[in-house]
Amino acid sequence: MSTRAQTATTNDLLPSWSDGPAKQAILDFMRTTIDRLSPSYVLPEDRIAVFDQDGTLWVEHPMYTQVVYCLERVPGVVANKPELRNVEPFKTVLSGNREAIARLSMRDLEKILVATLTGMSVEEFNAEAKKWLETARDPRWNRPYTELVYQPMLEVLRYLHENAYKTYIVTGGGQDFVRVYAEKVYGIPPEQVVGTAGGTKFGYAKDGKPFLTKDAKLLLNDNNAGKVEGIHLMIGRRPYAAFGNSTGDRQMLEWTGAGAGTRLKMLLLHDDAVREYAYGPAQGLPDTKVGTFTPALYDEARKKGWTVISMKNDWRQVFPFENQATEARP
Amino acid sequence: MSTRAQTATTNDLLPSWSDGPAKQAILDFMRTTIDRLSPSYVLPEDRIAVFDQDGTLWVEHPMYTQVVYCLERVPGVVANKPELRNVEPFKTVLSGNREAIARLSMRDLEKILVATLTGMSVEEFNAEAKKWLETARDPRWNRPYTELVYQPMLEVLRYLHENAYKTYIVTGGGQDFVRVYAEKVYGIPPEQVVGTAGGTKFGYAKDGKPFLTKDAKLLLNDNNAGKVEGIHLMIGRRPYAAFGNSTGDRQMLEWTGAGAGTRLKMLLLHDDAVREYAYGPAQGLPDTKVGTFTPALYDEARKKGWTVISMKNDWRQVFPFENQATEARP
Repeated sequence: MSTRAQTATTNDLLPSWSDGPAKQAILDFMRTTIDRLSPSYVLPEDRIAVFDQDGTLWVEHPMYTQVVYCLERVPGVVANKPELRNVEPFKTVLSGNREAIARLSMRDLEKILVATLTGMSVEEFNAEAKKWLETARDPRWNRPYTELVYQPMLEVLRYLHENAYKTYIVTGGGQDFVRVYAEKVYGIPPEQVVGTAGGTKFGYAKDGKPFLTKDAKLLLNDNNAGKVEGIHLMIGRRPYAAFGNSTGDRQMLEWTGAGAGTRLKMLLLHDDAVREYAYGPAQGLPDTKVGTFTPALYDEARKKGWTVISMKNDWRQVFPFENQATEARP
Repeated sequence: MSTRAQTATTNDLLPSWSDGPAKQAILDFMRTTIDRLSPSYVLPEDRIAVFDQDGTLWVEHPMYTQVVYCLERVPGVVANKPELRNVEPFKTVLSGNREAIARLSMRDLEKILVATLTGMSVEEFNAEAKKWLETARDPRWNRPYTELVYQPMLEVLRYLHENAYKTYIVTGGGQDFVRVYAEKVYGIPPEQVVGTAGGTKFGYAKDGKPFLTKDAKLLLNDNNAGKVEGIHLMIGRRPYAAFGNSTGDRQMLEWTGAGAGTRLKMLLLHDDAVREYAYGPAQGLPDTKVGTFTPALYDEARKKGWTVISMKNDWRQVFPFENQATEARP
């Protein structure tokens, strides 16, 4: 007990972070916004922080987890609708040919998303997604996808929660999908998940019980400028801190940074091929279609004083399951 | 001090409520959902309560306050766009002819809403609405509209807050309009206001600063079935308590009531022409186009065990400014 108490110093609130400018930016932001005597003091009710999810809170490579879900749901959908079996793109997905699947067009992918994410009741969708998350495994780590979350970001979330910050996920991913696990995995309740959202349709079952069906109409494309529009729609005030990792988060960081007082703007650079993945193409990293961090975004970050987090250098530990980093220390 | 402490018994948490089935329903609901030993115990993180606004939390007669705002904003809009001066429906509004204004069609009203609620930045709108709310007066009571809130409902909100319930406004009114005052008036922060919402458009000012413009595209028509769709979109879980006063709240109460365990469903009946207004047409009250409580809704309430609150009989005090009811008591 006493050892634990002794190690609970300010620095230990972020034990997976190496000492350096990224960790310092977080500590400075917190100190200046929660100190009543600071000119940048923020009232507790105004403390809002937003986080992109894919590539910011959990792994997004080689493919967004929700896309994996949709592809793996195809057999189940076809079992209920056998007429799709020989129709593209479902036929290709059922073939299991990874190369052919990787070549599917955006339009094909949209057809798969619509077939696997809409047309069912909200409860049915939640049950399916929950079941999948409990059984599916990422092939590289052979672990549930929900374990592939970044330990340093969990520490930031906790640090924010402990200081009365309300944390939101603002994701290009499906709002309903992320809500299935966000409370358990991040401690973020459904109402604090803002994501790409389709409409729902209210109706009555035969017994008179009302239900909602997920429909294909897009209400909010929560990417790029859509993230700012989503923040206005769902939160209604400007965040004081924003975390992202790709060009899809640019406007969200700009919007956050344009507010008065101290604002924290951070971008995670995936430059650690050993512990996770390395992609960019900022800083000469390999180009990618999933979570692009362009040289232009890097330049904007430098110019505007946003903090770039190097996974390789700023994080002593990446995942919660590699406990070495914290446990090995005295 | 000791007198105050003595009167803080359970019953006094709702001092403006007369003893009767409505007050009892609220007390019973609370007891059964916060008692860990109750089969209907609700975990604190799941405690969600939703309130319609117009006619449920504040006065909606003879005209929705937001419509008054839009009509009174017309001169300001025309000052910036003189070409509208002789165009209908703006011409009629500028004439000040109340009878002619009352005869405007829904299409005319929509034109006025679009002209006064969209086309400006989010900040400009907030500043305009705030300014109006500070100066406008309801003609009957000669008070700011934000004072025409129901004391008994403020007590319910507080009672819920004190027991870890998260309260949401779910209103057919404009989300952005209600957010301007909800925190100050009800203690409900912007992110807990769900309302009819239009899109916004992200852009950059000449100095590179990002801004959002309110546009006329309707994202969510938060009325009738739209209230349930709005609850799913913005909250993502089913409420345990729902308060409304008109057919526009029917589906929200049905949705709330269809959940497992104990759920509180309440409808306010405006049957007090002396202290407020009497309209229905349930229970033989005069028919109305603003906040219709139909006989069919009354029947459904009775059949499903929803509680109808009689303003006349269940409320000892209607407004916070008539302090007699609480202060006169021993």
